[in-house]
Amino acid sequence: MTSSRKLFTCPSPALLPLYDFQDSIVVVVDIFRATSTICAALDHGALAVHPVDDVEICKSFGQDESYITGGERRGHIVPGLQYGNSPLDYTADVVQDKILALTTTNGVRLLHKVKESASIIIGSFLNLDAVCDYLLQQDKNILLACAGWLDKINVEDLLFCGAVIDQIGNQLQIECDSSQIAHSLWLQAQQEESIYEFLKKATHFHRLESYGVGRDLVYCSQLNTHPIVPVYKEPWLVVE
Amino acid sequence: MTSSRKLFTCPSPALLPLYDFQDSIVVVVDIFRATSTICAALDHGALAVHPVDDVEICKSFGQDESYITGGERRGHIVPGLQYGNSPLDYTADVVQDKILALTTTNGVRLLHKVKESASIIIGSFLNLDAVCDYLLQQDKNILLACAGWLDKINVEDLLFCGAVIDQIGNQLQIECDSSQIAHSLWLQAQQEESIYEFLKKATHFHRLESYGVGRDLVYCSQLNTHPIVPVYKEPWLVVE
Repeated sequence: MTSSRKLFTCPSPALLPLYDFQDSIVVVVDIFRATSTICAALDHGALAVHPVDDVEICKSFGQDESYITGGERRGHIVPGLQYGNSPLDYTADVVQDKILALTTTNGVRLLHKVKESASIIIGSFLNLDAVCDYLLQQDKNILLACAGWLDKINVEDLLFCGAVIDQIGNQLQIECDSSQIAHSLWLQAQQEESIYEFLKKATHFHRLESYGVGRDLVYCSQLNTHPIVPVYKEPWLVVE
Repeated sequence: MTSSRKLFTCPSPALLPLYDFQDSIVVVVDIFRATSTICAALDHGALAVHPVDDVEICKSFGQDESYITGGERRGHIVPGLQYGNSPLDYTADVVQDKILALTTTNGVRLLHKVKESASIIIGSFLNLDAVCDYLLQQDKNILLACAGWLDKINVEDLLFCGAVIDQIGNQLQIECDSSQIAHSLWLQAQQEESIYEFLKKATHFHRLESYGVGRDLVYCSQLNTHPIVPVYKEPWLVVE
């Protein structure tokens, strides 16, 4: 049954001012790689992920034994941070019982831009079903917010939105062209062998592949391997 | 054969600052209804279309016998303008040998935002093939610029971009996710009986239908009924 709850998709952080999300649940989406990495770290036993805007502040957390630090700028490792922004970095032996201070170009910055919302959760293909189940249990409108790449729209982030819409859209009101475009993208992706194959068309895929992180792209294209829902409890992301 | 010419798609005027289009041909796209109306008026014998930002300035052209005036604000007729923004308004007996001063919420405003380009042409489903042929004959990069609706992304404008990409994309370099999303949208639309049927999903379709201009939506969804290329020669759009 369709509820009166609405779902919107914001395909770029630059378009956020067009959306009224103060009373909404915002799903932050940065498939390659921040939100995939957050899911991996928390599911592998991190106590929390502490999203940090500033690289220097992020580095400073490294002096605290309870923390590890990681992140990237424009897809590259940042000297002075202990780890990068690869989900493969955050195995259980690295993150168990630690807090990960994480700073990234697009995803973490987006998270800070949507703080004035009812709540924030983290979405990736790795926790798709868990996100959908969580969203259905709430009673607020939903904004799917894509991190994009330096404010340009990304195939991979919008594709995730399409996957959410495909799964739970019929139980929500959708009057938002970006959501319909996202859903079309998801339906079109079904023509390919896998999400991974479809995402080979994405520009960011090639950018990251050229950085030598091809394995990350395979990892981030998996479905439901980390069935958790990271929720933002300022200043941390934790598993609820 | 793929050339070294590049094609980009800008899905919203709010994202224009992300694109470097100074040396590009910009195709302005506002399917419902400005660019469809411009094609209809010029193909029906208007000498030129004079795109005007300001409603009052547009009205003032009505005092000149060589002009007729038309336009809309937020989809509605503007008192004091002689005609609306419906392509059906501009039959041969109305526009023949006249200059149409036209002001619209999204399309005309977008045109003024891309003036710092190499050239500007007008795209709609009504002149799809003519636009594609024209673009192939040029030697510059291409930006497909969507008018959207108050800076939000529209299904109908992005769908047109997808149609262009489907037709000539294999002869260009496309490293732009928005272009790939547009192409997916076009491919997905092929599952429907017609463009018109597919566009029934668009929010702007319902908005305009509620304004009582349902016939316009049928008109704007036709393919190649006005096989001309409106080119901007400041201050006018003319058929080259």
